[in-house]
Amino acid sequence: MANAIRFLSMDAVEKANSGHPGLPMGAADVATVLFTRYMNFDPKNPLWPDRDRFVLSAGHGSMLLYSLLYLTGYDDITIDDLKEFRQLGSKTAGHPEYGHISGIETTTGPLGQGLANAVGMAIAERKLAEEFGPELQDHHTYVLAGDGCLMEGISQEAIALAGHLKLNKLIVFWDDNSITIDGAVSLSDSTDQIARFKAVNWNTIQVDGHDPDAIGAAIEAAQISDKPTLIACKTVIGFGAPNKQGSHKVHGSPLGAEEIAAARKSLGWEADAFNVPADVLDAWRLAGLRSTKVRKEWEERLAASPTEKRAEFVRRFAGDLPGSFDSTIDTFKKKLAENNPTVATRKASEDVLEVVNGLLPEVLGGSADLTPSNNTKTSQMKAITPTDFSGRYIHYGIREHGMAAAMNGIALHGGLIPYGGGFLIFSDYCRPSVRLAALMGIRVVHVWTHDSIGVGEDGPTHQPIEHLASLRAIPNLLLFRPADETETAECWQLALKEKKRPSGLALTRQNLTPVRQDYEEKNLCAYGAYDLISASDAKVTIFASGSEVEIAVKAAGQLNQKGVATRVVSVPCVELFMEQPDDYREAIIGTSPVKIAVEAAVREGWDALIGSDGIFIGMKSFGASAPGKDLYKHFGITAEAVVAAAEKRLS
Amino acid sequence: MANAIRFLSMDAVEKANSGHPGLPMGAADVATVLFTRYMNFDPKNPLWPDRDRFVLSAGHGSMLLYSLLYLTGYDDITIDDLKEFRQLGSKTAGHPEYGHISGIETTTGPLGQGLANAVGMAIAERKLAEEFGPELQDHHTYVLAGDGCLMEGISQEAIALAGHLKLNKLIVFWDDNSITIDGAVSLSDSTDQIARFKAVNWNTIQVDGHDPDAIGAAIEAAQISDKPTLIACKTVIGFGAPNKQGSHKVHGSPLGAEEIAAARKSLGWEADAFNVPADVLDAWRLAGLRSTKVRKEWEERLAASPTEKRAEFVRRFAGDLPGSFDSTIDTFKKKLAENNPTVATRKASEDVLEVVNGLLPEVLGGSADLTPSNNTKTSQMKAITPTDFSGRYIHYGIREHGMAAAMNGIALHGGLIPYGGGFLIFSDYCRPSVRLAALMGIRVVHVWTHDSIGVGEDGPTHQPIEHLASLRAIPNLLLFRPADETETAECWQLALKEKKRPSGLALTRQNLTPVRQDYEEKNLCAYGAYDLISASDAKVTIFASGSEVEIAVKAAGQLNQKGVATRVVSVPCVELFMEQPDDYREAIIGTSPVKIAVEAAVREGWDALIGSDGIFIGMKSFGASAPGKDLYKHFGITAEAVVAAAEKRLS
Repeated sequence: MANAIRFLSMDAVEKANSGHPGLPMGAADVATVLFTRYMNFDPKNPLWPDRDRFVLSAGHGSMLLYSLLYLTGYDDITIDDLKEFRQLGSKTAGHPEYGHISGIETTTGPLGQGLANAVGMAIAERKLAEEFGPELQDHHTYVLAGDGCLMEGISQEAIALAGHLKLNKLIVFWDDNSITIDGAVSLSDSTDQIARFKAVNWNTIQVDGHDPDAIGAAIEAAQISDKPTLIACKTVIGFGAPNKQGSHKVHGSPLGAEEIAAARKSLGWEADAFNVPADVLDAWRLAGLRSTKVRKEWEERLAASPTEKRAEFVRRFAGDLPGSFDSTIDTFKKKLAENNPTVATRKASEDVLEVVNGLLPEVLGGSADLTPSNNTKTSQMKAITPTDFSGRYIHYGIREHGMAAAMNGIALHGGLIPYGGGFLIFSDYCRPSVRLAALMGIRVVHVWTHDSIGVGEDGPTHQPIEHLASLRAIPNLLLFRPADETETAECWQLALKEKKRPSGLALTRQNLTPVRQDYEEKNLCAYGAYDLISASDAKVTIFASGSEVEIAVKAAGQLNQKGVATRVVSVPCVELFMEQPDDYREAIIGTSPVKIAVEAAVREGWDALIGSDGIFIGMKSFGASAPGKDLYKHFGITAEAVVAAAEKRLS
Repeated sequence: MANAIRFLSMDAVEKANSGHPGLPMGAADVATVLFTRYMNFDPKNPLWPDRDRFVLSAGHGSMLLYSLLYLTGYDDITIDDLKEFRQLGSKTAGHPEYGHISGIETTTGPLGQGLANAVGMAIAERKLAEEFGPELQDHHTYVLAGDGCLMEGISQEAIALAGHLKLNKLIVFWDDNSITIDGAVSLSDSTDQIARFKAVNWNTIQVDGHDPDAIGAAIEAAQISDKPTLIACKTVIGFGAPNKQGSHKVHGSPLGAEEIAAARKSLGWEADAFNVPADVLDAWRLAGLRSTKVRKEWEERLAASPTEKRAEFVRRFAGDLPGSFDSTIDTFKKKLAENNPTVATRKASEDVLEVVNGLLPEVLGGSADLTPSNNTKTSQMKAITPTDFSGRYIHYGIREHGMAAAMNGIALHGGLIPYGGGFLIFSDYCRPSVRLAALMGIRVVHVWTHDSIGVGEDGPTHQPIEHLASLRAIPNLLLFRPADETETAECWQLALKEKKRPSGLALTRQNLTPVRQDYEEKNLCAYGAYDLISASDAKVTIFASGSEVEIAVKAAGQLNQKGVATRVVSVPCVELFMEQPDDYREAIIGTSPVKIAVEAAVREGWDALIGSDGIFIGMKSFGASAPGKDLYKHFGITAEAVVAAAEKRLS
């Protein structure tokens, strides 16, 4: 049966003339044991919430996963899909892409990410088991990781968190083949991985990765461990290719017709390319039916659950918010209109979260060790501990990358909506995971505080300059930068309602004067940009986001007082604005002879609003260490500078 | 003497009303033992090339370093500088900034970076010791790291590399105070750090971090180890503040006058704020003179070295290239003009490096396990191994972040110019280190291959879309994207001559038709953008970079043939173009009624050249998995699309 994986992988890579045969061939035995004897999954009901999750962290070995999904009988992958491996429009992309086939639990390829996603999935499972009971949530999360995954720093963050939280249903197979692209692992690494995992509180087992019984025994031992388990599987990369196996030559290139023929001979496989002998395919399809009973029993338990619990479970896995969500935010906004406080938007975010977390039990908060700075822990957010998952807050530790990837895993698992706090500057530390969230189209929310030189004394290492532009450059990510508490409430509302996109909220450290005075039923931030201060026949239009909106308002006041008709457009979300109909966009951009954008960051991206001849008041260099107010003056981001620039241009 | 550090730190934080007293107070004993008994450094000759390096990886404890530099008598820091802690324009920024004071070896603050920089410094020391002998290079690199540094994933990459390479002159003090911002370390971590470091081949020692003799003994043991050493120093954060020590309350806020008074009492310190008793200061200043003899002896050895060796050593530490560098590149370009090959720019880069590496022994190459893909290993580049540092190539492993930070350390150490290969997509994995290189203004070169959808079958996880824009957004970083081998040679020439800025070269996987036919003495890429195809009264100007220049050339050919006068501007480096004089920039941008930019990436940033009403042919979404040529067609990045867009606009 494992040879079916090997030959499908060889054949598909050969036909595509591109791909990675080495891992699928080396790890075929491990995968076969797991999928035919232990994994609970149902190809006919692939999204069954209590299925075991399988994450191919070493995503370049995608043909392993595609072979498994085809062989076990998933409806949305056929032999023709395997023949279309790596071709335009095919489901079988070079690396597994979430959404292409129902059995792909996460997009992998960038190394280490899948392992860290799996940590999030295991957190989600344990949290939901605590909430809904083992009758509705009780599954394992399996990972296949390679040397690359384990060398990446993100893996340390992920395994340390998993070991700390005692995620004992997480089982990681390490495809220990001693080979990387450059050659032998020993060229660059001398790590004792067993000792390393033990050091972070993991159970570890070593087996021959080509011995089915040993693999099975290891899985059984892992399943009863009270810690997460690493099963180190010693394998031969490209197992079965007689002349190339065990070397980096089988990693990332087709084997060639000759070597494939030799493999056929050596493994005694007589079927043609893309053909799986009927008895072998039958055995695989039978394995695909193995969990039908388990799944049916689970459905019976769900059906037998109290109505309210069942409805809640179904709602949570559908990712729908309760019907009262909008009205709750609306009530909050009404109260704000009476007393919109002068607060930092990080504090405004806490106020909003206090309401949101009270309403939405599915929200799972956390921070990368900046809880008191990110204002992410509201009254409902008791911390999760290794022995008690009744809490709703995760102390992720100083692990931005691991946190972001775990959040992806939590969202992918379903049933929970994760948010996590960090400084905006450190979005750089977790950018690969943020990008993957955007690529997958999943709902995770990053609470990025300390979003400009307003950080002050901590200096240039802690002051984002290029981060707003570089996050806006990521397709399918919504970056919100609210200007006061009302906008913060609206942005949170949008982020949480966005089922198919990740969001980031850029929030200030420093206090801001409110710019929205009146209650407005509409969510104005939903337009991405809107008229905050209108003026007919405006000579000047000032666009600004976040903390710079109050500067724009002040400048407009001075200009209007001087008789220069001036509009202010608040721009809490550039991406949403760009999606508005042409006529709305044109109306907002308007026809003022002078257009100015104010943002304490680089100019990139603003030309779309102000034109390339527009005036930009912002940053051109790194920041500096000084009180925030001094820095705004020093870098010339003030109402006075805006007024002067406008007057100069008009004169 | 340690109390002098404690009170200066308390006083400076108090006066600034901002900062982190906890670490300097807790680690004062460790630092005092190191600086007064073991470190070889000379405040009067602070840049002496064979000094021991000290890296405060936990950069938030900057007052520890500033106190040490002041107390030991560095000329470029005074008591007034300490009083100006964290104020605008002061040398004593919130976090240590490289270049502010000569004793600051690297900019730290983003956690884990300093530790990884130090790995680079230790690599540089060993490499230079191999090259110039222990008489000129034989020093230690010391690091003070906190829990945050060790939790960050980058630390695993760094320590694994250091352990593998047996960097036995690297000694890391872990300030083991059990406290992070969120509270106790145990909230988020259960790592056995000793076991973890042992697992990657380190020597480990545990001491009471307030016991000077134990600290001293540990340092002595570490100095004779054949492995890098972790000295775990159990400390009390905020040691000496009787009511707040040992808790996260002393981490990041002023102690308050009351608590400082209590500390004075408890530690028996009678001096006023910012006053160090004369006897204590004398003792410190004496410690600052401790290594004078060692330094003088070193200078004598340098003076006694053979003339050529001495000159080479001095040249290397001055960072000057040999006089023949330009002419060597020029000769290479002349040859190219005879036969500019159709190659991928990654291969072009290899050709250039073959020449460069032959000329410049200071170049230290490497790759994050993508050697055969990055084309970074030329004939001169024998690999460095744990037992043999005569090579010039580092197999960094699958550790982009660790590599980038180590490269920063190598550059900071002096005597070497590091380059490192990776896929452009994975610039995201090392972005924090790239940013720090830009902030510090140091010469490191990133070889980023596979720079667009031209990657092909590997799909969207491996295809950069937003990376060119987001790297261009980082101040003080030069991003080069050459269009053929001639441009690649010019870009390498510029990157290597740039002593005060890091560079990245974005290079293709796929072959490119050469666009530069004739030999040109001038380095045209130095202008950032230049006329590749001129046309008087051009109706259309097409701007393009890298692999899209050949598309622009093809489109211009078609348009010119149709009688539409069309220019082509090649844009290998946007940043350099923006630095050109106004008249040059205006001339290059020109006055064509139709301006088009072609780049297989997002639009952000291009409006500065084409105007916000310009036409952009590029990417708006993530890529896809298919052969590269199919993708260019699929996403409409073709000469035909350029021609059609131009004609439509003109009609």
